[in-house]
Amino acid sequence: MGDRAAVERILDRVAAEGRSSLTAPEGRAVCEAYGIPTPAERLATTAEEAVAHAEAIGLPVVLKIVSPDILHKTEAGGVLVGLTDVDAISRGFTQIVDNVRAYDAGARILGVQVQQMFTTGQEVIIGAVTDPTFGKIVAFGLGGVLVEVLKDVTFRLAPTSTADALSMVDGIQAAEILRGVRGSDPVDRDALAAVITGLGELVTDFPQLSEVDLNPVLATPAGATAVDVRILVDPEAAKTPHRFTQDEILAAMNRIMKPSAVAVIGASAEAGKIGNSIMKNLVDGGYAGEIHPINPKAAEILDRKAYPSIADVPGDVDVAVFAIPAKFVPAALEEAGKKGVAGAVLIPSGFGETGNIELQDEVVAIARRHGVRILGPNIYGYYYTPENLSATFCTPYDVKGGVALTSQSGGIGMAILGFSRSAKMGVSSIVGVGNKADLDEDDLLTFFEHDANTELIAMHLEDLKDGRSFAETAKRVSKRKPVVVLKAGRTAQGAKAAGSHTGALAGNDKVYDDILRQSGVIRAPGLNDLLGYARGIPLLPTPNGENVVIITGAGGSGVLLSDACVDNGLSLMEIPPDLDTAFRKFIPPFGAAGNPVDITGGEPPSTYRNTIALGLEDDRIHALILGYWHTIVTSPMVFAELVSEVVEEYRAKGVYKPVVASLSGDVEVEEAAGYLYDHGIVAYPYTTEKPVAVLGAKYRWARAAGLL
Amino acid sequence: MGDRAAVERILDRVAAEGRSSLTAPEGRAVCEAYGIPTPAERLATTAEEAVAHAEAIGLPVVLKIVSPDILHKTEAGGVLVGLTDVDAISRGFTQIVDNVRAYDAGARILGVQVQQMFTTGQEVIIGAVTDPTFGKIVAFGLGGVLVEVLKDVTFRLAPTSTADALSMVDGIQAAEILRGVRGSDPVDRDALAAVITGLGELVTDFPQLSEVDLNPVLATPAGATAVDVRILVDPEAAKTPHRFTQDEILAAMNRIMKPSAVAVIGASAEAGKIGNSIMKNLVDGGYAGEIHPINPKAAEILDRKAYPSIADVPGDVDVAVFAIPAKFVPAALEEAGKKGVAGAVLIPSGFGETGNIELQDEVVAIARRHGVRILGPNIYGYYYTPENLSATFCTPYDVKGGVALTSQSGGIGMAILGFSRSAKMGVSSIVGVGNKADLDEDDLLTFFEHDANTELIAMHLEDLKDGRSFAETAKRVSKRKPVVVLKAGRTAQGAKAAGSHTGALAGNDKVYDDILRQSGVIRAPGLNDLLGYARGIPLLPTPNGENVVIITGAGGSGVLLSDACVDNGLSLMEIPPDLDTAFRKFIPPFGAAGNPVDITGGEPPSTYRNTIALGLEDDRIHALILGYWHTIVTSPMVFAELVSEVVEEYRAKGVYKPVVASLSGDVEVEEAAGYLYDHGIVAYPYTTEKPVAVLGAKYRWARAAGLL
Repeated sequence: MGDRAAVERILDRVAAEGRSSLTAPEGRAVCEAYGIPTPAERLATTAEEAVAHAEAIGLPVVLKIVSPDILHKTEAGGVLVGLTDVDAISRGFTQIVDNVRAYDAGARILGVQVQQMFTTGQEVIIGAVTDPTFGKIVAFGLGGVLVEVLKDVTFRLAPTSTADALSMVDGIQAAEILRGVRGSDPVDRDALAAVITGLGELVTDFPQLSEVDLNPVLATPAGATAVDVRILVDPEAAKTPHRFTQDEILAAMNRIMKPSAVAVIGASAEAGKIGNSIMKNLVDGGYAGEIHPINPKAAEILDRKAYPSIADVPGDVDVAVFAIPAKFVPAALEEAGKKGVAGAVLIPSGFGETGNIELQDEVVAIARRHGVRILGPNIYGYYYTPENLSATFCTPYDVKGGVALTSQSGGIGMAILGFSRSAKMGVSSIVGVGNKADLDEDDLLTFFEHDANTELIAMHLEDLKDGRSFAETAKRVSKRKPVVVLKAGRTAQGAKAAGSHTGALAGNDKVYDDILRQSGVIRAPGLNDLLGYARGIPLLPTPNGENVVIITGAGGSGVLLSDACVDNGLSLMEIPPDLDTAFRKFIPPFGAAGNPVDITGGEPPSTYRNTIALGLEDDRIHALILGYWHTIVTSPMVFAELVSEVVEEYRAKGVYKPVVASLSGDVEVEEAAGYLYDHGIVAYPYTTEKPVAVLGAKYRWARAAGLL
Repeated sequence: MGDRAAVERILDRVAAEGRSSLTAPEGRAVCEAYGIPTPAERLATTAEEAVAHAEAIGLPVVLKIVSPDILHKTEAGGVLVGLTDVDAISRGFTQIVDNVRAYDAGARILGVQVQQMFTTGQEVIIGAVTDPTFGKIVAFGLGGVLVEVLKDVTFRLAPTSTADALSMVDGIQAAEILRGVRGSDPVDRDALAAVITGLGELVTDFPQLSEVDLNPVLATPAGATAVDVRILVDPEAAKTPHRFTQDEILAAMNRIMKPSAVAVIGASAEAGKIGNSIMKNLVDGGYAGEIHPINPKAAEILDRKAYPSIADVPGDVDVAVFAIPAKFVPAALEEAGKKGVAGAVLIPSGFGETGNIELQDEVVAIARRHGVRILGPNIYGYYYTPENLSATFCTPYDVKGGVALTSQSGGIGMAILGFSRSAKMGVSSIVGVGNKADLDEDDLLTFFEHDANTELIAMHLEDLKDGRSFAETAKRVSKRKPVVVLKAGRTAQGAKAAGSHTGALAGNDKVYDDILRQSGVIRAPGLNDLLGYARGIPLLPTPNGENVVIITGAGGSGVLLSDACVDNGLSLMEIPPDLDTAFRKFIPPFGAAGNPVDITGGEPPSTYRNTIALGLEDDRIHALILGYWHTIVTSPMVFAELVSEVVEEYRAKGVYKPVVASLSGDVEVEEAAGYLYDHGIVAYPYTTEKPVAVLGAKYRWARAAGLL
C-alpha cells in the first residue's frame, strides 16, 4: 500500500501553486511513496559531501545543480553525467557551481544533486493515462524504437493485480527480450510487475493524476528503476460518470423486458406508419400482457381501446414505446414519467445523432426526474422472445433460444434479424441501443446475466459510454455466460494529441482490445463472425481441456484445419502411442494417424463412426474437429446422420465434448451441414476456417472464464 | 556487374582445398568483387606500417593477427578492438605479436591486419540462402533483437532488381527506423539496396554459394558496409530442376485440355465403379470428341465401342484417363505412350502419397520416355467446360465462365465443385493435380494464360515442386489475369535447422508470402476466401485509381465498411468540397457527406439512385462500396434492381467501376444479393467484411499488375 499522506502533501502544494505538473523531484517522491524505485540521489552542499554521497550511492553518478532560479540546467552548465571516479566528482561539483554562477550571478544555489546513474538494463516504458472511455489505464512497452515504431505496447485497467501486471510484461510481442536473449540474463519480471501495480494504485488513489510517464524504466536482473518521471495533474481527470446500482438496474430492466403492460405512444391504425407496425408486432408477436395504444384521435387500434394520453390508461404501465416525432417526446415523456413507467423506448431519430444534443439532454433530464430509464433514442426497438415481445417496427421474431443480441446501429440490427431468421438461431432478445442516451450495454449485460433464458450475449458497439463500468460488468458476466463483442470503428480512430508519451500511445484500438480481453470478452473480428459465434458457441459444450483432435477424410482439409487451429490458438494434441495404435485399427494402412487423423477419402461410414467414437470415448481428447470429404461411399447425409448419432450416443452416456465439422463436397453438403447444426454440431460447407473459428472462440471464453 | 573472375579464383581455391566455407578475408574479397563494401583493411608488417595504415583508413581501428597457424585469434590474444590513437596502435602491434608468440612459438606470423572500425550505424542483416522450393533467395531485416525476436524479415527471389531491393528496405515492419526516428538522419537506402542487388547477383552467378550471411551490415546516412561476412559453399546448391519450354508446355496442355479423342483405361459398364463414372461424365457432360472405353472384357460401354487395349484404337488419342489400380498403370502407360497420347490422367491412388515412391518414379520415367505428360496421380480428374469435358469420377459441371481452379487435394476439389455449383460460378476449368508427379501449377498457369476462356486462375496448393518457376510464371501471367492462391500448411512448418542466421529465418511461411506477393499473386487467407475471390474478382471492372467511396443507408454499416477498407488496404477518398456539395444535394440535412456518404436510413430509392449515379459519374471516384439498410421505404429487391439499373446505365455509357455491396436486412436481402451478383455487383448479406475483401483483392491484383 502506498504512502498516501506523502503524496497528498506534494499534491496539495502543486494545487496551491496552481501547477499542472510535478517537478522531477516531486515526481520521484510520489513514485517512492508507492514503492516505485527511482535512482538514489542525495543533495550535496560541498564537494566533499558530493564525493561521500557518490561513494554511498555507488559509481557512476550524475551531478545536477539545484536552484529555484535555474530552469534549464543543461544550458546553464549545471549537469554532468557519467562521473566514474572521486576526483571527477570533486572537480565536477566545483565546475557546476562555477558554471551556474557564470550563467546567472544572482541565482540561489541550494546545492548539487548526486544521482545514481545506470549503465545497463533494458529500457521499458510504463505509464498511466486517463482514457476518455476507460478512465485510468496503465500501459507497458519496451522503450525506444520498439514502442515508437512498432507500437508494441499493452494496456490494462488501473489498478492491476500482480497477475495482470505480469500478463502485461509477458504480453508484448517482444516479451522474449525481457526473458533474456543472446545469452543475457532475464530481467526481474516481478520488479516490473511491482512498478505497474504501484503505478495503478497511485493513479487510483489520486485520480487527479491525469498522466504519469515512467520513461524509461530500466529493468535489470536485479530490479526495475524509474529513471525519468513525468506527472501531470488535472482535476477533470478525477471525474467519474454516474452509475446505477445493480439493484436499480435489475429492477428497471426486469420491468422493461418482462412488462405487464405496454403503451404505444403514437399508435396508429394506418398501415406503413411506425406506430402501426409496432402495434401489429406486439399483437401478432403474441405478447400476452396489456397493450395500450395512445392516440388522441382514435377510439380503437387493432381492436385495442386507445387512450388520448398515457395518463388515461387504467392501471400501471411498465413500458412506453414512443412512435412520435422527436419534438413531441419531452411532453409525452413527462406524462409517461408521471404514470410511473419503468422504461421509455424512444424509436424516433432527431436527437443527438442529428446534432440535436439539447433535446436529448432535455429528455434524459425528464427521465431522471421521474426515475424512468430510456432505451434509445434512434432505435428499431427491442425483442424479448420469452414474453413474445416484439416492441419494434421491424417484423416479429419467434425462434426462441438462448442468444441475446444488441446493436448500436439499426442497420446492424436488421442484419442480426435477417441472419438469425435465416439460420434459425434461437434468440432470447434483440435490443437496439441507438444513441444510448441512458440505458447501455452495462444495463443489458446485467439483465442478461440474471436472465435464465439467456446463455450468450452478443453485442455490436461503436463506443462505450463508460468503458470501465462495461469492463467490470463484462468481467463478472463472462464468468457465467459468453460475451461476444464486435467493436466497430477499430481502425478509424487516429491517435489523439496527448500531453505524454503514454498518452500518444493510448486512444487506439489496442486499448479496447486489451481491456476487452482482460474482461473475458470474446472479440469478433467482423459482423459475420459475431453472428457465427453467437449461433455456434452455445451449441458447443465447454471443453474439459486443451487437447483438440482433427479427424478427416481429406488430407487437404486436414492441412487447412491445422492452419486454422494455429490461427485460432487451439492446441493440436500430441497423440500418445496407445491412442495412435487405437486409431490405426480403424483406418487403412496408408492412412495417417497422428493429428490430424487422416482416415483417407474412400472410407465407408463405419470408419468415420469408429474414429469419432474413439475421439469421444478417450478422456484425454477434449474437442473434435471433423473434416468430411464427399464420396459415393459415404454421402453427405449419411455422414451427418452418423455423426449426430454417435455424438448423441455419447451425450446420453454423459460425455459432452465440442464437435465441429468442415464439409467438402457437392451441394448436398449444405443440407448435411444444416442437419449437423440442428444436432448440436457446428458445421459449415466449403470452409475450413469457420468451424474452427467458432471452436476457438468457445475456447477463448472458457479459458477467460477459468473453466479450463 | 560483378568481377566474376576474382570470385572464380577464390572459389577454385576453396574447391581445390575441399573446403565448404570461405575465410573471412575471402568472404570480404568476394563481396568487394560484387560491389558490396566491407571495412577498409590493410596488412601491416611493422608497428610503423600499422600506424600509417590506421591513419589512412581512419580511426578507430581493429588489429588482428594474420597467421595460417592461429585458428582462434581472440584466444591467442591476437585481436585488439577500438584503438583510437597512434600510440595505442603502435603498442598494440607489438602486444599482439608478443601474445601470439607466447601462445604458439612456432606460429608463422604474416603480419597484423589493420581494419576500419565502425562506432555508429544501424545494424541490419542481409543474407542469401538456397531455399528448397525457391532456390536462391535474399533476406533483409534489422539486426539484433528485431530480427531475432520479432522475426521482422523479408525475402525475395535472387537476383533482385533495384526496385525490389528498395521494396525490401521499405517493407519490413520497422522500416521507419531506417527512415530516421528520434531526430536521427535516415540511412542510405540506395546503398542498402545496392548490397542486396549485389548479393543477389553474386549467388546467381555462383549458385554453389549455398548461404551468405552479411551480419551485421552497418547502415549509415553515408553508406552501408558488410562488417561480418560468412559464406558457405555446397555444389548441391547449384542444382536446378528440369524445366519444359513454354512451347513444349503449351503443345502438350492444348492437347490435354482440348483433346479430339479421349481413352478411358479401365472403363466399366458397372455403376459405382470409377471407370463407369468417368465414362458417364464424359458422355453426359456433352464432350463432342471421340470417347474410347478400354476394357479387354467388354465390347461396348455406354454405347461406345470398347477396345481391349489403347493400341487397338483407330486414329490418334490425345488423353488417356486411367481408372485402374496403381500396379497396372506402368504397363498401360507404356501402351498409351506408344500410342502417342499427350496426357495421362492418373486417377488412382497408391503412389507417392502412400509411400510408394518407386512406382511413381517408374511411371514418370515411362512417361518421359514417350513424351507423355502426367496429371496426378491420386486425383479426381479435371474439367474443361469450353469442351464440355468432365474427365472425372465426380459429377459434371456445366456453368461456363472464366474461372479456372486447381487443387492439390481431392477434398478441396470437391469443395470447389460444390461451392461453384451452389454459387452458379462460371468456370472454365477445374483440375486436380494430386501428387504432381509431373504436371503442376506452372504448366496449368501457362495454359490458362493463353486460354481465351479463362479470366482468373485460383489455386489451392500445399507445396510447390519448383517455386522459382512458379513465381516466374505467375509474375508473367498475373500481369494479364488475376492469380489467386490458397497456400495450405502456412503455419505447420517449423523452422528447419540451418547453417546460418539467414537460413534459420527462412523456411517459414514468410518466404512464400513475400515471393508470392512479388509475383503478383493474390494470396487468399482461407478456403472460403479463395472461392469468394474467384467468384467475385472477374465480375469487377479494374479500377482506374485508388479513390474508394462508401455510400450507405446505415451509419453503422458505414463504420464497419470503413474498418474493412483499412483491413484490406483500400483508400477512402477524401471528398473534395464540390463533390461534398453535390452529394449533399441528394441526402437529408442530418445525413453525413464526407466518406462514408451516409444517406441515412429512411430514404426512398431515389436517394440511393442519385448518390450512386453521382459516384459513377464523377471521374475522381474509382470504386463504390454500398451499404444497404432494409426498410419499408426501399425494400431489398427494389434496391437490388435500382443498383443494377444504374450500374448498367453507366456501363452503357462506357463507365466501368467496381461496385460491391453489403446488405443488412431481413432474409429478403439474400435474394437481393443474388440478383446483384447476377448483374455484376459483388454483394453479400449479413457481412460488411466479404464484399470489401473481394474489392481489396481486386485492388491488390490491379496494383501488382501495374494497372493503377
